[in-house]
Amino acid sequence: MSRLYHVPLSPFCRKVRLTLAEKQIEVELIEERFWQASPEFMRRNPAGKVPVLRYEGRILTESQAICEYIDETVPTPPLMPRDPRARYEVRRLCAWFDDKFHHEVTANLLYERVNKKLMGQGYPDSRAIKTGSARIKYHLDYMGWLLDQRRWLAGNDMTLADFAAAAHLSCLDYISDVDWTRSPTVHDWYAKIKSRPAFRTLLADQLPGFPPPPHYADLDF
Amino acid sequence: MSRLYHVPLSPFCRKVRLTLAEKQIEVELIEERFWQASPEFMRRNPAGKVPVLRYEGRILTESQAICEYIDETVPTPPLMPRDPRARYEVRRLCAWFDDKFHHEVTANLLYERVNKKLMGQGYPDSRAIKTGSARIKYHLDYMGWLLDQRRWLAGNDMTLADFAAAAHLSCLDYISDVDWTRSPTVHDWYAKIKSRPAFRTLLADQLPGFPPPPHYADLDF
Repeated sequence: MSRLYHVPLSPFCRKVRLTLAEKQIEVELIEERFWQASPEFMRRNPAGKVPVLRYEGRILTESQAICEYIDETVPTPPLMPRDPRARYEVRRLCAWFDDKFHHEVTANLLYERVNKKLMGQGYPDSRAIKTGSARIKYHLDYMGWLLDQRRWLAGNDMTLADFAAAAHLSCLDYISDVDWTRSPTVHDWYAKIKSRPAFRTLLADQLPGFPPPPHYADLDF
Repeated sequence: MSRLYHVPLSPFCRKVRLTLAEKQIEVELIEERFWQASPEFMRRNPAGKVPVLRYEGRILTESQAICEYIDETVPTPPLMPRDPRARYEVRRLCAWFDDKFHHEVTANLLYERVNKKLMGQGYPDSRAIKTGSARIKYHLDYMGWLLDQRRWLAGNDMTLADFAAAAHLSCLDYISDVDWTRSPTVHDWYAKIKSRPAFRTLLADQLPGFPPPPHYADLDF
């Protein structure tokens, strides 16, 4: 069986988990404390980070490269459109969330509140929390603006862009850092993606020392 | 005509410039001091960074999304292989250079020595320079290891992975931070890519206050 080395609250691992589950590819999840950099893990992935996927006898790394590979080799259901302009928009938005949103929001909120404690690096920096809390509003508004024009983030079909965004937001929702009242459009989009069978594995995550709030796994949040 | 808003020593802009030139797409280069965030520029790209490409009447952002879009719509010469496994390897390596190499090497050397001064943020941090100088050795060795098994970085054909790597290395070569004697294999690969017509625009770059060393534009370096 395939194996995914991951950490539960990594948006990059979650994007891959959503993609695998949507394609109905069974995978054994192995939690990997990648920051301790065990020699075995470094041998599997010299980049020293998660996700690392063992799939069909090969080791795959880099979440976007993994997701596009899975989509190209397991075409149903499609997570990339066929038209090059639409594909561009999916890739642009994946980069938007995995780079800009990650840097401005996820790193400031999730990594300060959770990863620092897990890695024994002390307490959250209140300036970072403040920055992250301010920036997430701008991003929710941008998503609302996109979703006012389209059924899904990159167009009228669900794509990897929705998984990239939902992967980040679901991690932040685990620590109650998403204000779902800010945009009804974004709330409805998240309700739609949260109710997919592929999302169940994410909603079952439990991090010792960090219990999720009751609304986290509630489809009627 | 198409327009690329860029800065000369940005590896992400250079990857796009190489792709456009290789596809023989003419483009007007507009230098953009994106860190000053002029309102016009922010309107063109809400992410507030370069490259921004105006192409066929549309605004395109995010270098990897741009390059794959160009490759899908202007197929000759191809910069992505057809086989999904080979495509995975190209995307993995683009992420390796644009994320890991960028973070460990480019940010520590180029941004400390050049961008800080341009942006009026003071002097280079000697610890960052030390880290970058140590990490680039590891990356050159990794490239040498790949190139001992393949003609180009991702396989036997030139791809976007070579452009991603060459974009970073050419910026660092402009400030004499690449030790070309470390790996003859990497030296030969760079000589090959440097002699392509698409590379000429990069070799002609001149940054006021930062003259390039004589070997920078020399094909026989």
